[in-house]
Amino acid sequence: MIDELAQVGRNPSTGGYDRLAWTAADVELRAWFTQTAHARGLEVETDRNGNLWAWWHAELPGTALVVGSHLDSVPSGGAYDGPLGIASAFAAIARLQDAAVLPGRPVAVVAFADEEGARFGVACAGSRLMTGALDPDRARALRDVDGITLAEAFAATGRDAVHLGADDARMRRIGEFVELHVEQGHLPSSTGDDGLGAAPLGLATSIWPHGRWRVDIRGQQNHAGTTRLADREDPMIGLARVIIAVREAAGRERALATVGRVQVHPGAVNAIPGAATAWIDARAGEENTVRRVLADVARTTGFVATEESWTPETRFDEDLTAALNDAVGPDLPLLPSGAGHDAGVLALAGIPTAMILVRNPSGVSHAPEEYADEDASVLGVEALAEVIRLRSRARVLA
Amino acid sequence: MIDELAQVGRNPSTGGYDRLAWTAADVELRAWFTQTAHARGLEVETDRNGNLWAWWHAELPGTALVVGSHLDSVPSGGAYDGPLGIASAFAAIARLQDAAVLPGRPVAVVAFADEEGARFGVACAGSRLMTGALDPDRARALRDVDGITLAEAFAATGRDAVHLGADDARMRRIGEFVELHVEQGHLPSSTGDDGLGAAPLGLATSIWPHGRWRVDIRGQQNHAGTTRLADREDPMIGLARVIIAVREAAGRERALATVGRVQVHPGAVNAIPGAATAWIDARAGEENTVRRVLADVARTTGFVATEESWTPETRFDEDLTAALNDAVGPDLPLLPSGAGHDAGVLALAGIPTAMILVRNPSGVSHAPEEYADEDASVLGVEALAEVIRLRSRARVLA
Repeated sequence: MIDELAQVGRNPSTGGYDRLAWTAADVELRAWFTQTAHARGLEVETDRNGNLWAWWHAELPGTALVVGSHLDSVPSGGAYDGPLGIASAFAAIARLQDAAVLPGRPVAVVAFADEEGARFGVACAGSRLMTGALDPDRARALRDVDGITLAEAFAATGRDAVHLGADDARMRRIGEFVELHVEQGHLPSSTGDDGLGAAPLGLATSIWPHGRWRVDIRGQQNHAGTTRLADREDPMIGLARVIIAVREAAGRERALATVGRVQVHPGAVNAIPGAATAWIDARAGEENTVRRVLADVARTTGFVATEESWTPETRFDEDLTAALNDAVGPDLPLLPSGAGHDAGVLALAGIPTAMILVRNPSGVSHAPEEYADEDASVLGVEALAEVIRLRSRARVLA
Repeated sequence: MIDELAQVGRNPSTGGYDRLAWTAADVELRAWFTQTAHARGLEVETDRNGNLWAWWHAELPGTALVVGSHLDSVPSGGAYDGPLGIASAFAAIARLQDAAVLPGRPVAVVAFADEEGARFGVACAGSRLMTGALDPDRARALRDVDGITLAEAFAATGRDAVHLGADDARMRRIGEFVELHVEQGHLPSSTGDDGLGAAPLGLATSIWPHGRWRVDIRGQQNHAGTTRLADREDPMIGLARVIIAVREAAGRERALATVGRVQVHPGAVNAIPGAATAWIDARAGEENTVRRVLADVARTTGFVATEESWTPETRFDEDLTAALNDAVGPDLPLLPSGAGHDAGVLALAGIPTAMILVRNPSGVSHAPEEYADEDASVLGVEALAEVIRLRSRARVLA
């Protein structure tokens, strides 16, 4: 199934995928979702927030076991972050159907909208709108780099953003959520310092507390060829110091901190810029560690960063995680996720949630080199099928 | 006349001017040029490279005395860099006409196209195409940030880029070129270390050797939230070191060097970038000084910059400059220009060329704060009128 999507949103110059939310590539991926679901007799609906749902026996009583992930990517991202979870869910259901297995409760595959937040700056927009964690007025007004609002982008795909917002009725239908995801990085796990290591599968027990901050550095725009060094207020010097300070602070605090985006105004080769902005992404096992990184950057550079978002630590459901370990393990490596996920949003909203991680030999993600081991991916589908069988109290048809 | 243009291409959020070549704002400025020329009975033509010419008595024998400058700006630039020279030229001719003065040779006001190079990356494109210094095939293929080629932008304003290129017939008609320009920065002059200082007018004797270089820094794009510091190849660290190194090298060598533009790929807050690029603008009184700045940056950072353009020192015509000093001075401050100009392109092509500078109290240019002293501007018009009178061997009508 990953191969079926190999050309969608592919950037030929980088080999990566540009699948930002509500772009043509995203719409194409959504059409694939619907087609794939229909081919297996699943019923497809789009909820008020643009999340896609494929129901397997929606008519059954009880709350649903939901599996899935997202389809969108960061700019020039990889093929697996998101789509692996959805493809694995469809493959797992297909495997159960082929074995004449019937679930004992509704099962749904979900594709949450705009998980990466790469276009409008807010990650997990689809799931956060659904749980009520993201205000719909704020969401509608978010703008992409071209000035297009989320509401306009949503409308351009034939949906009406007026309906965005908390979806309580749907939330009540979700009994459990399991997200399968490609391993990202090699953070220390219960079995070693190198992520999953040799293990094909593992379980994420938590999502690190994380946030993003903005540092605005003002200068005096001027001509690069005529302004004496002594007369300059060049914000690039401050920008460079912030980039270095962020890395050094992360090293001292054993945290992760990154400047991945900068904006320079006006950005002409022959102009000393009038302003520069750096965005900081910072994460660690403990909230206080993250706070110390930011304080450290402010102390060493004199620039105080403005918080744009903050997500406290999210712990996944211990019982569900233990049940998954029994079903798929035993003794799967347990590790934190440095990345945020829709699973984290649902866990924060009180839904029992767990995450299965599939080995990524390089650890690279959000890049063309992102990769999920093929053997591990097959084991991931088998694991998900087993999880669906057990957690949906499935039986084999006579 | 500067007031007449006050709204054209004005960016209300910065108060600066966005008048990039071949945009709607540029087209509007060009219409103003034509209207203003027609109001004074001057004959307007656009040459094959898109430069605008307003002729005063084109029918007279001999080569022309050409005065003028350009209309385009850098992003969020000032109101004076370029337009002051053209408005002053029209005002000077109007003053002569009102005094019933008739030139003894053709006089032209020129507005060279795309002087700043802010859109397509090549400064003085219009004058360089005319002199043959810029290859028309290369020019046509230049692209702006939206991927639009110069040929397409040119065509979008109703011109055909097929005719771009050296304009020998026109070059033979140009006898002398005098560009009046707002002072930029306060580089040391013959009368002090602070530019024109208290003097309203001065003369530029040369343009510093200058060039632009590109530093490409490769990394490994990866997830900012999951990749251990030890596993990172983050090009932002190299970028920060280049920015600092450029400034330090300029200080050591008493040169000017600037990183005013950077590009970060993919530029997402939660992605370690896969690549970063910095552009260096470097200038000094001596070519070897500039070369030492670049060598110094390469030595301290390990990154070798690729030269994108290089312009050797340009000296303006000594006789013409002396004649201007006699006519307008005596004892005008003489100083180098750190900025490139169409006047430099024409001087390099062998046209006797000189530049009059008009005091700018702040020294700021390429920014909304750019300013030409009003008293000095009036003196500039008077000076230009006197230069046209003398150099065109004008006489008063009976």
